[in-house]
Order: sequence, then structure tokens, then C-alpha cells
Amino acid sequence: MSAIQDMYPDELSYCYGCGKNNPDGHRLKSYWDGVEAVAHFMPQPYHMAIPGFVYGGLIASLIDCHATGIASAAASAVVGGDMRGVPRLRFVTANLNVDYLAPTPMGVELELRGRPIEVKARKVVVEVTLSALGQACARGRVVAVVMPDAMAPRDGG
Amino acid sequence: MSAIQDMYPDELSYCYGCGKNNPDGHRLKSYWDGVEAVAHFMPQPYHMAIPGFVYGGLIASLIDCHATGIASAAASAVVGGDMRGVPRLRFVTANLNVDYLAPTPMGVELELRGRPIEVKARKVVVEVTLSALGQACARGRVVAVVMPDAMAPRDGG
Repeated sequence: MSAIQDMYPDELSYCYGCGKNNPDGHRLKSYWDGVEAVAHFMPQPYHMAIPGFVYGGLIASLIDCHATGIASAAASAVVGGDMRGVPRLRFVTANLNVDYLAPTPMGVELELRGRPIEVKARKVVVEVTLSALGQACARGRVVAVVMPDAMAPRDGG
Repeated sequence: MSAIQDMYPDELSYCYGCGKNNPDGHRLKSYWDGVEAVAHFMPQPYHMAIPGFVYGGLIASLIDCHATGIASAAASAVVGGDMRGVPRLRFVTANLNVDYLAPTPMGVELELRGRPIEVKARKVVVEVTLSALGQACARGRVVAVVMPDAMAPRDGG
């Protein structure tokens, strides 16, 4: 099963959070079963907020990339193709809203689970829960919209 | 003029976004004049979303650290001391809400301006605008709360 992000076109795969072509980034991988997507991520020791606890900006970043991936997958299903068959069906974030529910411990793998709660061809709303050791530590809601033409790489990859 | 983050106690200065003691992090510096705080940040080439545009997760991270810094400074003023005189008056994020208004161009320094819109000793609400080349690209609203005792480093620094 391919990760959603591994099906993005090459020229749109440089995202610091999830692009397979960004060797300096997090390269988050989200696996979608048609209803829900799951991703796992192990923070590096320097990704801390306070010693012992994960940096909230990283948590927001992971939720963001997981959600825009889900938006691509869910909207692709609505328009009737798989992601590879729908060129540039790549979503960007219009709004990111994260509630930090509990301090997120360092040193354990984080799990993200998310699903779309509203799906249109050009706008998808996604909810994501980030957990550590089975406890929900953050909950995010992302409004994702199709990437505007102004952001499309000029050379077409 | 010292940055807010340079007045955090040493043991609370490891934040990936703004800790002076985290050599792998962004080390954001926010300068507070009693009303507003300003910070500047130059994204690295790998901090991209799509080629040419800054990664939204970085934008959220910068807004987050700028806002929690403002919360510390504003709440310290309310309780009557400077930040150095108020041990552990360190805020963490309860809610982070970011509207992405326009694609943020790579290759230019970003400016963050923020101010508190609600200040209590243990809870501060902050609004931050992130701009590039004079254009507002993102706007954030952060609900910051005093760091819970459960997060305080055990050894006391």
C-alpha cells in the first residue's frame, strides 16, 4: 500500500513536512483505507518544547501534512480517480486549528489518525487526532483547499 | 534590548522553535516594547511547501513561539515583575489557530508582529500577523496558558 504522499507528482513532492523529494524534511507517510488515514512519526531528540515533551510546532506540522494528504485522497475518490490519475489534485491549508490536550511525551512514536468530515472537489475539512502511548495529546481541524494556480510549479515537472 | 526568549530560564530554553539552548532549532527572537512584539525569520531553502513557497508548518511554528513569548512578557508585566524576576512564568499553547491568507514566498525574511488581546496571570490570548515583503500571508490566534507543573523540569535547572 503506497502512502498518499508517495503518489503526489514529483514536482509537488518537496514539502518539508511530507515530500518524498525533501531529504531534510520529516517525510511523513499517511496510509489511507478509504475512510481513515494513519501515520506514525518518531520525533528527533531536538524536537522538544520543554525537556521531556514534544514541540507543539512539530505537532501542528504533522497534523497539517496528514490532513492535506487526506484531503487529496478523499477528493480524488469523489472525482472518480485514484490520486495518480488526477494531476495536481494537491491541497493546501486555508485554516489550521489545533487543540493541545495533554503534554506529548518525547521518546515514543506518535500516531496520527484522521478522516474527512466534509468533502467537496475543491475544499475538504479534516479532523486529526495525534496520540502517544494511546493517549490523545492533540486534536486538529484543517480546512484544505485545492492548490491555487499561482502556486503551481512553472516547469510542470 | 533582549529578546523575550533570551530571558527564559535556562532549563526552559530548549524549545525547537525558540530556545537559545537548542542549536538544532529555529531560535526565534521576539522583541517586545510593552504593546507589541516583533520577530524576523529567514526560512532555509528546505523549508518549502511547494517550490517557491514557505512550508505552512513552519509558519504555524513561528506564530506559536512568537505568541507564547508575548504571553510570557505580557503576563509578567501584569504581575509586576520583569521576566527574569518571575521564575517559570513560561507559557504553553492550549490552542493554535492559523489562517493562511496568501502563499508565502521563499527567499525573503519573514516578519511577525503580535500583541496580546486578553491578558490574565495564567491565560493570555495573542494575535500574530506574519508578513513577507509587506504583505500579510498568515494570521494566527493563540490561547496560551501557564506551563502546567507536570511539564516543569524535575532538576530545577
